[in-house]
Amino acid sequence: MLAEIITIGDEILIGQIVDTNSAWMARELNNIGIRVKQISSVSDDRLHILTALAEAAGRTDVILITGGLGPTKDDITKKTIADYFGVKLIENKEALENVTNIFARYNRPLLEVNRLQAYVPENCEIILNKNGTAPGMWFNEKGKIFVSMPGVPHEMMYMMEDEVIPKLKSSLILPVIIHKTILTVGEGESFLAERIADIEASLPAHIKLAYLPKLGQVRLRLSGYGDDDIILKKEVDEYARKIIERVANVVAAEEDIPIEKAILNFMDESGLTLSVAESCTGGYISQLFTQHPGASRVFFGGGITYSYELKEFILGVKKETLDQFGAVSKECVTEMVEGALKNFKSDYALAVTGIAGPDGGTPEKPVGTVYIAVANINKTIVKKLTFGNKRQQNIERSAISALNMLNTLLHDSGKLG
Amino acid sequence: MLAEIITIGDEILIGQIVDTNSAWMARELNNIGIRVKQISSVSDDRLHILTALAEAAGRTDVILITGGLGPTKDDITKKTIADYFGVKLIENKEALENVTNIFARYNRPLLEVNRLQAYVPENCEIILNKNGTAPGMWFNEKGKIFVSMPGVPHEMMYMMEDEVIPKLKSSLILPVIIHKTILTVGEGESFLAERIADIEASLPAHIKLAYLPKLGQVRLRLSGYGDDDIILKKEVDEYARKIIERVANVVAAEEDIPIEKAILNFMDESGLTLSVAESCTGGYISQLFTQHPGASRVFFGGGITYSYELKEFILGVKKETLDQFGAVSKECVTEMVEGALKNFKSDYALAVTGIAGPDGGTPEKPVGTVYIAVANINKTIVKKLTFGNKRQQNIERSAISALNMLNTLLHDSGKLG
Repeated sequence: MLAEIITIGDEILIGQIVDTNSAWMARELNNIGIRVKQISSVSDDRLHILTALAEAAGRTDVILITGGLGPTKDDITKKTIADYFGVKLIENKEALENVTNIFARYNRPLLEVNRLQAYVPENCEIILNKNGTAPGMWFNEKGKIFVSMPGVPHEMMYMMEDEVIPKLKSSLILPVIIHKTILTVGEGESFLAERIADIEASLPAHIKLAYLPKLGQVRLRLSGYGDDDIILKKEVDEYARKIIERVANVVAAEEDIPIEKAILNFMDESGLTLSVAESCTGGYISQLFTQHPGASRVFFGGGITYSYELKEFILGVKKETLDQFGAVSKECVTEMVEGALKNFKSDYALAVTGIAGPDGGTPEKPVGTVYIAVANINKTIVKKLTFGNKRQQNIERSAISALNMLNTLLHDSGKLG
Repeated sequence: MLAEIITIGDEILIGQIVDTNSAWMARELNNIGIRVKQISSVSDDRLHILTALAEAAGRTDVILITGGLGPTKDDITKKTIADYFGVKLIENKEALENVTNIFARYNRPLLEVNRLQAYVPENCEIILNKNGTAPGMWFNEKGKIFVSMPGVPHEMMYMMEDEVIPKLKSSLILPVIIHKTILTVGEGESFLAERIADIEASLPAHIKLAYLPKLGQVRLRLSGYGDDDIILKKEVDEYARKIIERVANVVAAEEDIPIEKAILNFMDESGLTLSVAESCTGGYISQLFTQHPGASRVFFGGGITYSYELKEFILGVKKETLDQFGAVSKECVTEMVEGALKNFKSDYALAVTGIAGPDGGTPEKPVGTVYIAVANINKTIVKKLTFGNKRQQNIERSAISALNMLNTLLHDSGKLG
């Protein structure tokens, strides 16, 4: 069973927003065994939308459409879908009730443009929008399913989870897809490929292996396609096991989770706690940890110590150290990480200080110079890294490097202990 | 001049990665007056890639392709593009030198799979990859330009900035597109639309207005299409001026910047400083600020105080307050924000504490209960907000609410002072 996701709206095409909806929807579809064949972002343009719908219907069975359902003039999705099916828009009672209730709840007058949101193509089933005024629409035409949803992420997400996914599962006979992902850290794509070449060559046609590299990490993803859930899972797991054994020294997680989640899981299971001292990463590492439910069992928090004064006050970095060596130095990062351990009373700590850029470099310490430290009560490890002059990239690379160092320290300490 | 962006790779289609490349590329293209007609994400499948190339060439003049250039088996872009043009792959001397140099620099042996990366379709011009082993490829065939680049973001970005954009500018006669964006805060899309309905109705055909709503903010974007840079800019600016005057009370920025950047700009110009005390947002607000160059002129940093102990140690929240009212309370958030002001010695501070979820709620304080405080020396404002049970959404909404409150306090204080 194949699907296409069509996102409608100029804001994606001019790059004003990143299309995060599609990735989320693709994950949901894959989970129930629907493969996404294509994701297309098209403009708020009638002819273009009509072409996209026809192309999608030509290659897939399920077409999920987001965006262009707002109350304003530039939102033409609903009218265009009606044209595509050659039907009229009619007022839908439930949808009108929903809009009316929402406005009543917020004590706001119902405007004519909002009332128009209850008009839908006459051949659709309404999907109630619990979080907004634009209804979703479900079409079953010529053996294809079309679903139109708002582009506002949380409206679309609730609609997908509560209505669309269950309805797809009950309407379709779905094949089985099993994905298994292995997170590796610290070895390049081609070296990994070389190490597991024979395993890859032995994969049957219905199991594919993909390499997904990103900032010093490579995800190895096995995808199996079949009919029988249990047999397929066993088969995929066996190949995964072979790969994991082969490259065990660089495996950070045996599931599809990011490195910081692997660290949280490991520390949680081991009853260990963590704090951070972030300068140039400015909270980026903390939010990586705290985005995950249950982070508070491991993560105490820490200091975002951008200024000299906060490095001294929160972490106890010595004024003389800052004066003599500067904030971007081995000495400073060491005092930062050890200050975090001491002041925050966690088992482990990490610290980062550097020049994220694009300005602020000197000949001795150019933009992109970053010191990272990880520590526990027995051991402090410091690394100096040199990145480029792109601020966001320096922040992300510093974060990943710090996480990789922490992961290594955790596992090495585990072995010793 | 129209362009299509094609991203190749199953990782986007199974939702494992979010396609951030396309939004970035779209922005770069728009900046030089090339409109992106469509963004298509297609699978690592020969026939599908061939179809996508043909469809794109049918509707646009410039086709930018990313992904599928890695050294491993699942990367088939290069071979498929060669097939599309009906040409062979040949070894390119420059590309081979580049690969060889990179491996020499890292003191790694050159593997056969890496050597193969220097093979390219014989009808292309090479674009050197300064940050990786896969060369970019530039094709000029039948009046269309095709460019194939790696999918690794920083490799693609450098290639675009240094090579592709300058080459497109010198190869094409480009029209002029002017975008002007106004950031509004605190008023819904349809109410804004109602307030500026007459201005919108008076727009000439070559100027479009789009509403881009997101979490309590709406961006109003005017896009003008024409030939003359100066005339068009003047025209778009005039309509923008009318809109800004009409909805002045909700305008947070007169340019396309996020709210935290508008705050940083305003505080920088006013010589004001800021610190934060984040509990449930866990660093998310800090990293919003610190992603922007020059943030350190305004932002001192702050505390990520997940645990009780860190709230006490870093912010001076009283133990009795925590015991009596809990960490998620008006009393605690007030001590947090005032503790940040006092301990970090900034002019302004913000604090957030709440239950991000999905667990941890109680009947009195359900998941999604969040207290936010903003303060300066004269004034502390506290709000209790109630969101849903989605962790990431609660974090983002708390952050935006805190930023909106801070923005309001800054501007109200400005008026009073």
